[in-house]
Amino acid sequence: MQIKEILALNPEEQQIEVKGWVRTKRGQSALSFVSINDGSTINNIQAVMDGEKIPEELMKKVSCGACVAVKGKLVASAGSGQNVEVLAEELIIYGEADESFPIQPKKHSLEFLREKAHLRFRTSTFSAVFRIRHALSYAVHQFYHERGFFNLHTPIITASDAEGAGEMFRVSTFEPNKAPLTEDGEVDFKEDFFARETSLTVSGQLEGELGAMALSKIYTFGPTFRAENSNTTRHLAEFWMIEPEVAFNDLKDNMNLAEEFIKYVINAAIKNCQEDLAFLDTRFQNENKTKPQLERSEHTLLEKLDFVIENDFARITYTEAIDILLASKPHKKKKFKFPVEWGIDLQSEHERYLVEKHFKKPVILTDYPKEIKAFYMKQNDDGKTVAAMDVLFPGIGEMIGGSQREESLTKLKTRMAEMEIDEENLWWYLDTRKFGTAPHSGFGLGFERLVQFVTGMGNIRDVIPFPRTPGNVEF
Amino acid sequence: MQIKEILALNPEEQQIEVKGWVRTKRGQSALSFVSINDGSTINNIQAVMDGEKIPEELMKKVSCGACVAVKGKLVASAGSGQNVEVLAEELIIYGEADESFPIQPKKHSLEFLREKAHLRFRTSTFSAVFRIRHALSYAVHQFYHERGFFNLHTPIITASDAEGAGEMFRVSTFEPNKAPLTEDGEVDFKEDFFARETSLTVSGQLEGELGAMALSKIYTFGPTFRAENSNTTRHLAEFWMIEPEVAFNDLKDNMNLAEEFIKYVINAAIKNCQEDLAFLDTRFQNENKTKPQLERSEHTLLEKLDFVIENDFARITYTEAIDILLASKPHKKKKFKFPVEWGIDLQSEHERYLVEKHFKKPVILTDYPKEIKAFYMKQNDDGKTVAAMDVLFPGIGEMIGGSQREESLTKLKTRMAEMEIDEENLWWYLDTRKFGTAPHSGFGLGFERLVQFVTGMGNIRDVIPFPRTPGNVEF
Repeated sequence: MQIKEILALNPEEQQIEVKGWVRTKRGQSALSFVSINDGSTINNIQAVMDGEKIPEELMKKVSCGACVAVKGKLVASAGSGQNVEVLAEELIIYGEADESFPIQPKKHSLEFLREKAHLRFRTSTFSAVFRIRHALSYAVHQFYHERGFFNLHTPIITASDAEGAGEMFRVSTFEPNKAPLTEDGEVDFKEDFFARETSLTVSGQLEGELGAMALSKIYTFGPTFRAENSNTTRHLAEFWMIEPEVAFNDLKDNMNLAEEFIKYVINAAIKNCQEDLAFLDTRFQNENKTKPQLERSEHTLLEKLDFVIENDFARITYTEAIDILLASKPHKKKKFKFPVEWGIDLQSEHERYLVEKHFKKPVILTDYPKEIKAFYMKQNDDGKTVAAMDVLFPGIGEMIGGSQREESLTKLKTRMAEMEIDEENLWWYLDTRKFGTAPHSGFGLGFERLVQFVTGMGNIRDVIPFPRTPGNVEF
Repeated sequence: MQIKEILALNPEEQQIEVKGWVRTKRGQSALSFVSINDGSTINNIQAVMDGEKIPEELMKKVSCGACVAVKGKLVASAGSGQNVEVLAEELIIYGEADESFPIQPKKHSLEFLREKAHLRFRTSTFSAVFRIRHALSYAVHQFYHERGFFNLHTPIITASDAEGAGEMFRVSTFEPNKAPLTEDGEVDFKEDFFARETSLTVSGQLEGELGAMALSKIYTFGPTFRAENSNTTRHLAEFWMIEPEVAFNDLKDNMNLAEEFIKYVINAAIKNCQEDLAFLDTRFQNENKTKPQLERSEHTLLEKLDFVIENDFARITYTEAIDILLASKPHKKKKFKFPVEWGIDLQSEHERYLVEKHFKKPVILTDYPKEIKAFYMKQNDDGKTVAAMDVLFPGIGEMIGGSQREESLTKLKTRMAEMEIDEENLWWYLDTRKFGTAPHSGFGLGFERLVQFVTGMGNIRDVIPFPRTPGNVEF
């Protein structure tokens, strides 16, 4: 039985067995109080160890980080912070931990724990984060399954570049600097494993569209990659993305799906992770106090989550957003670092103004200038904009990017030619417009940004088990 | 509303709208019968199109592969094979498909459809396969979630080699043949994206163990990679693997978990995919008839599935398996291609004999010679074997490979030294044995092999949307 279940039992002096890792030990050899955690819950169970029952020799081996099994009676507890505790009758030491165990019971910085990512699961903060990550992940599958979507496993290794502009990781079985050459002295990719130049995918969207053009409703949930040299709190080289794609959906349906989806998974976390969220809420508020007045959040973590599920997202066009920005104080007072005018790619400072100052809630921006968006987005009748949408979140920025897709073969080919995108490489994508094309829409949600928002963790490296960033590939 | 839902309605001449792709069209322009499918179900809905209501001009555009919307009344049907059909009042053509559409209503070979993997979702066979794949995938998450496991997203790009011997794909941002060199003339990996030599993971197990040593019960479900030049019906270069890892589980617990898991997900498919399985069962039986007598399955697909969930798996040690093989007819009559003796890595022919001839059911083989297994497996007291387990399935071979893990730091280090595995690279793995080590076990299930077994598809390339094999990376 796991500690989560044991803590929910009625104490009736029943025999139980607790297995887990020692968090703290207080008292003397005559009477010790040992708190044990097995990761099933944020709560520890207290084992009371009487020197008359547990040999001193064994007791000495009980220290922070050690792995133990305790057999004994479950009784009501007054002092442990829980309703129950266990009176130890037998103690087994699975594994000791000496004082070099890095996660001693004191405050560790997140940076320090990142260096110990293999052990940080044993802290309250990180075990809470990864339990919530699981709850969100499960809610993702539930949401789509309940609505008749099929999970499609799109390929990771690819010969195409979905975004038309991504910085991609190369995949090869060539020895470095020993690739065979053609007669012309070029690298002979025909000799490589796939007989082609290949990379890690930046998105499963194009393949997802192939699925939606037959199964109607699909979603992907897999790793995607960016070889960008970004050392920020919001970027990873390897991250997980959820990409639904739906036949017959237009941009409005797409916005509705995105909003319903985000609310559903946040609601699932609130319902299923109360104790973990309460812990992270306290953490969030404590951290908030250490910040300069101007950067402090007005709300607690739980208030922020409630706010999202209880309010409609603002929905405005890019053009309206530019008007708001042009009329804004920071623009008039020249406080924005980057200029504002129709056609710009909105900068983080602009998005933050819209979301955090103007609307004070999530905002869905639509109908961006076609020049700053991907080739596959549906061209609007104005000839200038495309049916794109970005969902912007306070503190996070872009959580979702999506669009209605261009279903007209002619328009798609024209746009590809304008953007110098090779048709030959995407013959299969174009085929879906040639044979039974249909209106369809989809989006991509960066899963780690969602986990960041829900857990209140400031750095994206702290919400994925083993983050990959420039220069970091340990574990 | 999707066709699956419409087909379940009571026909009351209510107005409905059907959207989907045309499978067939019969009749004349005066009265046509058009079957439409949207991928939500294996069943088509029939639309009856009266020339007096639907303009001939439009009707001409209705052909196999076209995408249409039909508005009209839902009525009882006598002839369509379904309970209901729709009397069309309005027809919208979203996308035409001329006769060059490759998936015309006739029999196509699986090989042909593999070349058209972007369109094969529109066939009955492949839409059934991918709906079942989804159902299995969802059941995987359900199974572990219900049992208190946490889904852990282990890294895809890695600097370590989990199996100690895998053929791995290299990941790099170096231009081919243009990697910078150190002063010694070696490739200077410090200049690469991660400042290390990196590859695609062959398994999430080692990182999964890190999670289990704190959260107790975790599972992974992600892509894994093998750069092996295997052109078989059972191998892919990119495939999805499910890897649970459980603290405090021994080998027997591990076997119980594996058996319960497989039965659960197969049962879920039987319950939730009846129509798709019935279709694939017929397909399986038809294909079976075309095979030579000796290769024919004695059972239908559904019988095979029922058999697995209703019977205990056989459980024997490797040593017992060798004894059975040595006493077998094919061995005595020298029909095995490969020799049988204690210490060999069992060949496919040996596994098939055990599973298909001797036990006639799934077999769990345990306690393999340590020489043929990975460094991390728990060393048995006999000094010769390790606490490994393979689950072998009829027609599939190895479905699962797993083990109890060696939890003793000393034994693990000794074995690593014997096998010349670099300790330095795995310092974080060894740390889990240094600080609070615990008995623990886990296994990996190749998801595509499971889908193969459940769908009865003979080639693994037909159960993953876009297969990656040597020389194949299209789509």
